[in-house]
Amino acid sequence: MDWWNETVTAPSQTASAAARDRQLQLTKPSGSLGRLEQLAIQFAGWQSRSDPQLDNVDIRVFAGDHGVVAEGVSAFPQAVTVQMIHNFARGGAAIAVLARHCGAAFGVVNMGTVAPGPALEGVVNLNLASGTANFCTGPAMGEALVRRALACGAEQAPAQADLFIGGEMGIGNTSAAAALTSALLDLPVASTVGRGTGVNDQDLAVKCTAVQRALDLHCKVGMSALDILRCLGGLEIAALCGAYIACAQRGIPVLVDGYICTAAALVACRLNPGVRAWLLFAHCSAEPGHRHLLQALSAEPLLDLGMRLGEGSGAAVVLPLLQAACRLHNEMATFAEAGVSAGDE
Amino acid sequence: MDWWNETVTAPSQTASAAARDRQLQLTKPSGSLGRLEQLAIQFAGWQSRSDPQLDNVDIRVFAGDHGVVAEGVSAFPQAVTVQMIHNFARGGAAIAVLARHCGAAFGVVNMGTVAPGPALEGVVNLNLASGTANFCTGPAMGEALVRRALACGAEQAPAQADLFIGGEMGIGNTSAAAALTSALLDLPVASTVGRGTGVNDQDLAVKCTAVQRALDLHCKVGMSALDILRCLGGLEIAALCGAYIACAQRGIPVLVDGYICTAAALVACRLNPGVRAWLLFAHCSAEPGHRHLLQALSAEPLLDLGMRLGEGSGAAVVLPLLQAACRLHNEMATFAEAGVSAGDE
Repeated sequence: MDWWNETVTAPSQTASAAARDRQLQLTKPSGSLGRLEQLAIQFAGWQSRSDPQLDNVDIRVFAGDHGVVAEGVSAFPQAVTVQMIHNFARGGAAIAVLARHCGAAFGVVNMGTVAPGPALEGVVNLNLASGTANFCTGPAMGEALVRRALACGAEQAPAQADLFIGGEMGIGNTSAAAALTSALLDLPVASTVGRGTGVNDQDLAVKCTAVQRALDLHCKVGMSALDILRCLGGLEIAALCGAYIACAQRGIPVLVDGYICTAAALVACRLNPGVRAWLLFAHCSAEPGHRHLLQALSAEPLLDLGMRLGEGSGAAVVLPLLQAACRLHNEMATFAEAGVSAGDE
Repeated sequence: MDWWNETVTAPSQTASAAARDRQLQLTKPSGSLGRLEQLAIQFAGWQSRSDPQLDNVDIRVFAGDHGVVAEGVSAFPQAVTVQMIHNFARGGAAIAVLARHCGAAFGVVNMGTVAPGPALEGVVNLNLASGTANFCTGPAMGEALVRRALACGAEQAPAQADLFIGGEMGIGNTSAAAALTSALLDLPVASTVGRGTGVNDQDLAVKCTAVQRALDLHCKVGMSALDILRCLGGLEIAALCGAYIACAQRGIPVLVDGYICTAAALVACRLNPGVRAWLLFAHCSAEPGHRHLLQALSAEPLLDLGMRLGEGSGAAVVLPLLQAACRLHNEMATFAEAGVSAGDE
């Protein structure tokens, strides 16, 4: 049995039920905090405690290069992957600013880039490969490589945390996400390929053609999720997938970011359906393929602000909402404590 | 000329343009932070500075009782208004928890309740009246009273702040908001009356009847916004309206909460159309009438989490998003600073 098939324990129904009961006693009309009430109840179940906490949040960005950029699918040169690793480590990238803003632990894992990754504090250089192979002409990864990438994701995920947020950086990775989404959900490339970092109309057509070639080359009826990931994924996507599974196995809830992360999450749920119960979805990306993934996962994202940056930024923006939900749950007075008359609902 | 007609200066277009230019230089694909980019640009214009700040946020909850509760329109007894003022001051109410969560200044202004307001730190007791009169049988307020309530709102609004959030507490005030919305937008009560704190089907019908009686009694063609506020509003609603106008006149942006606050905001914009440029709308309430007000104000709220608590809670939940938008704008590295190659967009 592969490690990712190992059992995922369900969140605690006892703790959720107790939290639901407490919500009814807090000084507000029942249900009036909307989804914030549901979030507190979910976190109580995930953390098996009556007072869920979000002080110890771990944000880890996985980076990797993609062979498909040779086809001209991105508006940015491939060198940007490594340049952005510098920017993460020096605190100038969006996710680094947001990690400071919400007080989360933050680190970068370079899974494999074409240019060598920088030896900087906060960066783990694993260098499993010089990026993936071009999936238009062969599998993105070999069997051993995809297994190693999954395992490294699991190793780099926190051993303990109140919440895990995964992020990604990799020029070309919306093409990989689109290929995965088309293959996993049997959708045409027109539904899954978007503008990514901002390609023009001409390059969008190039991107669609590249993804279609990859699907034609690799996809077979009954193909396993592992094979889809191997042929069409990326090193950072496999790492996210492994991290999500490991978090679920360790009882750590996961806040899933945008298109690329959600593609990794769907692969994770295909590899081990028990993972789904530990995933919360942060936002709906402006990338058109994202909503198909969310629908397939029965996910109702919390925000829809037209974000499409990646890096985990959409999830990090949502974190203060989750922290607010927990603080309201823990710190609001009950009707009895406050001497407030309850309603006749 | 009444004070509320005094000029509102437009936000700085120079500062907005400079912020828009900076957004293009930050290390991300252009537009990829979606509405967070727009928010930073708006705050730059409001604050006339290139690095908008949200450290000094003022949350003020206005409370008042409503004569219409005699008709049986609420699931909670009227005593709850004053009980909740205690709960605000002692830190157990949702808005008090959220003010702590986001580091905002917080205070309560008792505009006029049936039971006497508590002499507690953080509570200003103005006691303009023992609540409003029942608007089913006469105007909610007299001319002098509504003018005083507007002026008190202006006085209690901050002299200086990075952002103002108004909140409200008043058993019965969704009935007042519904009456105002129907009168201001010429909408049937079926579109504006909701369940408020959570009335059952029978009481919902009672609430509709009460609001319809008020509209039949008071509404005339060409009625002024001030008369609509006087006949159908509330002391806390008039105070919010005055506070919003005063903030706009002082150059302080306003984050508008839910149904009751948005009704006050629409009255404010009718009294002085210049106010609109200083308003940002936090969320879409579960109260069905709210979306009509938002539409009338061309407002695109940031969140939709099914909240319907009031108190300013929906706005306070959004505040960390705005703070994130400003920090991203101020703290992200530019392409030049980070040595990241720009895209060919």
